[in-house]
Amino acid sequence: MNTKKMMIQEKVKPFLLQARYGIEKESQRVTLAGDLVRTDHPANVGNRSFHPYIQTDFSESQLELITPVTESVEEVLAYLEAIHDVAQRSMAKDEMMWPFSMPPALPEKEEDIQIAKLESHADVLYRRYLAREYGKRKQMVSGIHFNFEYGLDLVNQLFLAQDEEASLENFKTRLYMKIARNFLRYRWLLTYLFGASPLSEARYFDEEDRPNEPVRSIRTSHYGYVNKADVQVSYESLARYSEDLAENVAQGRLSEEKEFYAPIRLRGGKKVADLFHTGIRYVELRNIDLNPFDRVGIDADEIEFIHLFMLYLLWAEEKLSADEWVAEGNRISDAVSLEHPAKATAYEAEGQRIFTEMLEMINELELDGAERVKKYQAWLEHPEETLAARILALDEAEGQAAVATELGRKFYDQAWARPYQLAGFREMELSTQNLLFDAMQKGIETEVLDRQDQFVKLQYQEHQELVKNGNMTSKDTYIAPLLMENKTVTKIMLERAGFRVPEGETFNSLEAAKKAYPRFAQKAFVIKPKSTNYGLGITIFKGETSITDFNTGLALAFAEDTEIIIEEFLPGTEYRFFVIDHKVKAVLLRIPANVIGDGERTIAELVAEKNESPLRGLNHRSPLEKIQLGELEQLMLKEQGLNIDSVPEKGQQVFLRENSNVSTGGDSIDVTDEMHESYKKIAVAAVDVLGARISGIDLIIPDKNKPSESKDDYGIIEANFNPMMHMHIYPYSGKSRRLTLDVLRFLYPEMTI
Amino acid sequence: MNTKKMMIQEKVKPFLLQARYGIEKESQRVTLAGDLVRTDHPANVGNRSFHPYIQTDFSESQLELITPVTESVEEVLAYLEAIHDVAQRSMAKDEMMWPFSMPPALPEKEEDIQIAKLESHADVLYRRYLAREYGKRKQMVSGIHFNFEYGLDLVNQLFLAQDEEASLENFKTRLYMKIARNFLRYRWLLTYLFGASPLSEARYFDEEDRPNEPVRSIRTSHYGYVNKADVQVSYESLARYSEDLAENVAQGRLSEEKEFYAPIRLRGGKKVADLFHTGIRYVELRNIDLNPFDRVGIDADEIEFIHLFMLYLLWAEEKLSADEWVAEGNRISDAVSLEHPAKATAYEAEGQRIFTEMLEMINELELDGAERVKKYQAWLEHPEETLAARILALDEAEGQAAVATELGRKFYDQAWARPYQLAGFREMELSTQNLLFDAMQKGIETEVLDRQDQFVKLQYQEHQELVKNGNMTSKDTYIAPLLMENKTVTKIMLERAGFRVPEGETFNSLEAAKKAYPRFAQKAFVIKPKSTNYGLGITIFKGETSITDFNTGLALAFAEDTEIIIEEFLPGTEYRFFVIDHKVKAVLLRIPANVIGDGERTIAELVAEKNESPLRGLNHRSPLEKIQLGELEQLMLKEQGLNIDSVPEKGQQVFLRENSNVSTGGDSIDVTDEMHESYKKIAVAAVDVLGARISGIDLIIPDKNKPSESKDDYGIIEANFNPMMHMHIYPYSGKSRRLTLDVLRFLYPEMTI
Repeated sequence: MNTKKMMIQEKVKPFLLQARYGIEKESQRVTLAGDLVRTDHPANVGNRSFHPYIQTDFSESQLELITPVTESVEEVLAYLEAIHDVAQRSMAKDEMMWPFSMPPALPEKEEDIQIAKLESHADVLYRRYLAREYGKRKQMVSGIHFNFEYGLDLVNQLFLAQDEEASLENFKTRLYMKIARNFLRYRWLLTYLFGASPLSEARYFDEEDRPNEPVRSIRTSHYGYVNKADVQVSYESLARYSEDLAENVAQGRLSEEKEFYAPIRLRGGKKVADLFHTGIRYVELRNIDLNPFDRVGIDADEIEFIHLFMLYLLWAEEKLSADEWVAEGNRISDAVSLEHPAKATAYEAEGQRIFTEMLEMINELELDGAERVKKYQAWLEHPEETLAARILALDEAEGQAAVATELGRKFYDQAWARPYQLAGFREMELSTQNLLFDAMQKGIETEVLDRQDQFVKLQYQEHQELVKNGNMTSKDTYIAPLLMENKTVTKIMLERAGFRVPEGETFNSLEAAKKAYPRFAQKAFVIKPKSTNYGLGITIFKGETSITDFNTGLALAFAEDTEIIIEEFLPGTEYRFFVIDHKVKAVLLRIPANVIGDGERTIAELVAEKNESPLRGLNHRSPLEKIQLGELEQLMLKEQGLNIDSVPEKGQQVFLRENSNVSTGGDSIDVTDEMHESYKKIAVAAVDVLGARISGIDLIIPDKNKPSESKDDYGIIEANFNPMMHMHIYPYSGKSRRLTLDVLRFLYPEMTI
Repeated sequence: MNTKKMMIQEKVKPFLLQARYGIEKESQRVTLAGDLVRTDHPANVGNRSFHPYIQTDFSESQLELITPVTESVEEVLAYLEAIHDVAQRSMAKDEMMWPFSMPPALPEKEEDIQIAKLESHADVLYRRYLAREYGKRKQMVSGIHFNFEYGLDLVNQLFLAQDEEASLENFKTRLYMKIARNFLRYRWLLTYLFGASPLSEARYFDEEDRPNEPVRSIRTSHYGYVNKADVQVSYESLARYSEDLAENVAQGRLSEEKEFYAPIRLRGGKKVADLFHTGIRYVELRNIDLNPFDRVGIDADEIEFIHLFMLYLLWAEEKLSADEWVAEGNRISDAVSLEHPAKATAYEAEGQRIFTEMLEMINELELDGAERVKKYQAWLEHPEETLAARILALDEAEGQAAVATELGRKFYDQAWARPYQLAGFREMELSTQNLLFDAMQKGIETEVLDRQDQFVKLQYQEHQELVKNGNMTSKDTYIAPLLMENKTVTKIMLERAGFRVPEGETFNSLEAAKKAYPRFAQKAFVIKPKSTNYGLGITIFKGETSITDFNTGLALAFAEDTEIIIEEFLPGTEYRFFVIDHKVKAVLLRIPANVIGDGERTIAELVAEKNESPLRGLNHRSPLEKIQLGELEQLMLKEQGLNIDSVPEKGQQVFLRENSNVSTGGDSIDVTDEMHESYKKIAVAAVDVLGARISGIDLIIPDKNKPSESKDDYGIIEANFNPMMHMHIYPYSGKSRRLTLDVLRFLYPEMTI
C-alpha cells in the first residue's frame, strides 16, 4: 500500500491531523519520604470492579490512572491532570506518587510486595501467575500506555484515495499493520528522546542479571518487564499475528494473549480474534517511560510529537520484509535503550534521516508542528537534553531517589495547593469542578459537553444524567426553578401554604407606592431606593406608621432612585439552608467582609493578612473572595469614623461591607449542626411547597438555638434554584459540607457513595 | 355596635377599601334572532358536575357564569369578561346570550321550557319542585348575584377598635347582620339606579297577575321570582334568622333553606347552621338586574359604587328595631321597583340623604370615589339616566326585543372579533390566553399568579399544576430545556444517538475559522456573517471546496461582521414539529412574508389587503403579524428588481423577507396530515433523546411526501424548549391544531377533555 500517495491527495489533507487519544499511566504510591507504601488502595475511591479512571496495576501500591478517549491533546491532558488531582487527594495525606518509571527501593522480602487486592478472583490469579513467572520485582515498573487512533474521516478518505483494497475493514487492518511494523522498526527514536529509566533503585534487580547502568531506558530494554525471548510473533499480517499468538498460548509460552507485552498492541476487540470482524480500531503504544519532570508523566509537546511520528509511520515506506523489518527494529531498540544516556546514539544518522523525512512530510502536507520536530531533532546532537540524560545529571548531583522524592513532593504540593479546584477544568465554576472531582473519585464517567455552559454528562453503567452548573438536574421539574425565579409567585405559594414571608414590593411610581400604605402601616418595615449607596434614602419604621411619615419615607427614597422597595422588616439573622431531596444538607451564615483587630495592626494590614488565606481569590475561582479596599469599603469605614490606617482594638470586629455576599469578601460560616431542627423542618417543608428537590432557601431567624414555635419565629426571604455550593464545601469557618457528593448520591441512589 | 366609631380609627383607615368579590351571572341562550334556544348546554364545555365557571341555572337554556373570588374590581371583571368569551365561543355559532334580566318571549307550552339536564338527581328533583311551586316561566328571569366580603384585615382592625364583643367570630356575625338589615332597608336605591327589568316579553306573566308595566324592576318587585308572602324571616340575630328559616322549612312553606330567595344571603358555610361556628364570612347580594348595556351585565362603576354602598351600610345607624327596619325596607323596595322608570322616585329625599351621608363618609374616611357617588347622585334628579329608563326609551323607539337582540348581537360580535384572544387577559401572551380559554372551558380552575411573567396556576380537584408561558410545566425536567437551549450540546446528543445534524459553528476569529476547513471541505455548506443584510458576505459551497476558496469565503464574511457562521447546507424545506408526550401534535411550514400577484394591483396594495386579515396584528397579540414595508422589505424587493409600486403578474409570488419567521409577517401553513409518518417518528425519537416531553423541533426535509429511508433524508436544525403554540392554533392556512388543549390533556390525564 502506497500510503504516501494517499496522504497527499487534496481530499485527505483536511483530515490528516484528526485523531483520538487515551492515556493510561501507572505510578507507585510512596510516602512523602519516598518509601513504597504498604497501605491499601485509597478507600474513598470508587470500587475497582468498575472504576473507569483509577485502578491498580500489578501491586496494591501501583495506581493505574486512565483517561477517557478524547479528540484533542488539550482534552486528554485535562483529564490526566484531573485524575491526578483526584487520585492524589483521595490518598492518605502522607502519601504521594513516585514520578519515575523505575520503582523506589523495593522491600527486602518479595512477599512484602502486595499483589493488588482485586475483587475478581481471575484477576488476582493472573497476577499470582505473573509473580511466579516473572518475579514480583520486575512488575513494579511503571509507564505510559498511549492509545492512538487515526480519525475516522481520515481513514475513510485514505480508503477512498486507493483502489487496492475494496473493504474498509480490511483496509484499516492493513493500515494499522503497516503502522505497527514501522513503529516497531523506528520506536528506538522515542526511547532515545523520552526514555527515562536510566537507573534502578535497590532490589529491583537480582545481583547477576542486570544492565550496565546508567542506560537510556531499563524499562524498554530486554532487562525491563518483557516476555521471554522465545515468545516470537510476526506482524506480517493480522492472520499471522493471530496464529503466532495462538501458538504461543498453545505451547504454554504465554498463559493468555494479554501476557504478550508488545511495545505496540493492536486494539479493537476484546480478543485478537475479534479483530478479524471489527478490524483494528486503534493501537496502544506501551514503550513510553514516565517523564518525571511533568506531574502527569507526559507533556503536550511529547504527545504532539508522537502524533506526528504516527503520521510519519504512515508516510514512511518499509524497506525489508515484514519480519526482518521488525527484527531489525527490535535489535536497534534494545541497543539504544542500553546506550549511555549522556552519549550520542549509534543510530544518529538514521535519526537524522527520520527527522528530515518528517519535516519533508510536514512541508508537503502543509501541517503545523515543524518547530516542535526541530526542537527534538536538536536533541539528536545534544543527548544531554534527553530525559534520561537530565535524570542522570540530577542523580549525579543528589541521587536519583532524592530527586524523585523532591519532584514527587512538588507535584504533591501542586495537587494540594488549591484543593477546591480540579486541574484541567480550572476555568469552570468551582461547583462544577467539585462535582467532576467527586464523580471521578467515585467512578462515575464524566464528560464536559460544554465548558463555558458548565454542561456535564455523567454515566454509571447504563444510567446517564446531565448536569448544568453543578446542581441543575433531571431531578427537578422545569416549572420549579421558574417558580423560584419569580419572587412574587414564590411568595404567593409560600404564604398560602402558611409560611411567613415578609411583604415587600418594588415600585417605580410615587403614586403606586403611596397605595401600599395600608399593607405596611402596622408592621415594622423599611423603605429604600432599589440601588443605594450607604443608607442614603433608607428609612426604617417600627410599626404604627402614620401616612405622613410613610410619605416622607417614600420621598426620601425616590430622591435617590427611580425605583424603590418597601419591605417588611424581620428582626434576626439570615441563614442559607441547602435542601436536597427533602433533607437539609447544610446551613450557612454569611457575614459581611470584616477584620478583627489585634490592637496593633491597621485595617489595611489586617485585610492583607486575611486575604493571604489560600481560600480567598478573585473572580469566583476560589471559595472566598479577597476583601477589597475600594471606594465602597472606604466609605463604609468613614461612616464608622475609621479609615484603612485606623488600628482597631483587640477583638474589635470592623465591617467593610454592608452586604454579606461571599462574592464581596464576606465570610461563610457553617452552622448546620447548631441550627435548631425545627427551622430545618420549615426549610424542607417550604421547598416541598415550591415543588423543588434542590434549593437554597434563605430564612431570617432571630435565635437559631430556640425552637420555632409559631409563624412569627422566622421569615422566608427567598428560594434559589441554582444555589452556590462551594461556599458550603469550603466555608470560612465550621465544617465542610460536601454538597456535590450529595447531588451525586441523589442522582445515583443505586451507588453506595 | 357603633361601627362608625370604629371606622374612623386611624388603624382601621388603611384597610377600609379592602374587600373580596365574586360574581354569578345568569343569561338565557337565544338564537341570533333573539328566540329562546331549545338546544342543550354547550357540549364542549366541561361537565356541569364540577365546572367552576359555567353552569346552568333553572332551565337548560339558562347559563350561569361564575367568577372565582377575587380581591379587586379589575380582577373580577377580567374573569367575568373571560368567562363570557369562553361561554359565547363554546356555544353553537348561531346562539348568543340574551342581555336582559327578563327573558325573551317564552314558549307557548310550559313543557317546552326544558329543566336543566343535570347529572345530580337531587338537583333535577329540586328544579321540578320549583317548576311545580312557582311555575317554570317565573324561573326564566336572570340577574347578577354579587358576593361581597369585607377584607380580613379590615374586619380584624374593626374588631380591635371595639370592646363590646370579645369573640372575633361573633363580632363578624353581628357586623354582617347589621349590614344585612341596612341592606334590606336601603337596597331600594340600587333598584332605582340599576333596576333594568321594566318590561316583560310574551308569556312571562299569566294574564291576571302582572305589574303595571313599565316599572323600574319587575325582577326585584313582588312580581319577580320571590318567595310567597307567608315566608317571613327575621334578621334581628343569626339565631332568630336560623330559627325562622328552620320553622319555614318545618311548616313546609320552604322545601329547604336554599329556597329562601332573600335579596341578601348570609354566607359562610354550606348551611345556615354552619354559620354558628364559621361565623358569617360574606354576603350575597341578589337584587342586581343585568345591565344590558354592558356585555357582562355589570360595569366597574356599578361595582365600585356598590362597594362604597356596602361601606355606607356599615357606617349608617339603624333607626328602628330590626324587624321594623327590614319591613320598612321591603315595603319601599317593592314600591320603588314598581315606579315608572322615567319618573322621579317617591323616596328622592331619602335618596338625597343617603348620598349626602355617603359623601360625608368618603370625606371623613379620606376615601376615593366621591366623583362616582356624585354621578349616581345626579341620577336621582334625572331618572331618565337610570338603566330602566334608558331601556324604556329604546323600547319606545324600536321595541324591547329588537333592542335586546341588537345588543346581544353586538356582544356576540365582540366575543368573535378576535377569537384567538381572551377578554380580560389580552395583555398576556396569546398561548397563555389560549391555555386559559381551554382550561376555563373544560372546567379547570385557573389563576394567573403573575400576568407579566405568564405564570398560571391550574387546579382540578386536588391536582394543581403551574404553567409558565403556556407550555413550561412540571412534565419536563429542569435539565431538558437547558439542554435544548444549548445548541452545541443538543447537537452532540442528537448526533451520538444517530440523528443527522448539520454541522455548524460560530467563530469570532479568522484563525479559529480557518481550522474548521477539514470539517466542511467535502460538504455543501455556507459561510455567512452572524448578522447579515441581504446576502452580503454570504458564500455557498457545493462540496469539494479548496482551502483557497474557503479562505476567500471567510474573508468576505468577516468583512461584514466580527462573528461568522459556517454551517453545513442541507437542501430541503424546514418544518416545525410540535411534540407533546411522545406524539407529534402538529407540523407547520413557515414561509417568508409574501404576496401573490393578480396582474392588477401593486405590491403595496396586495400587502395592504393581506394585512386586513383579522389574524394579522402587531406585537404578537395576534396569531400572525402584519407585513411591513420597511427598509428590509424594500431592499428585498430591490434585489428582485421590484419596488412597492410594481404590479406582479397573476399568480406570481413575491417574497418581502428572506427569513420565514411568523413574527416578521411570514405565513404559517399546517401540514400535519400531509407530512410522511416516518419524519414524525424521527421527530418523536429525537425529542426523546433530549429527554423532553414538550418541544418544537425543526427538521429540514427535501420531500415531505417521500418516506425517510436514511440519515441523508433530513437534518435536525434545533429543538425549542418553549415553542410558540398560537401559530399552530391559528395558521395562515391549513387545519388548526389546538395545542393548548393537548397541553392540558397531558397535564390532566385523569380528565376526559
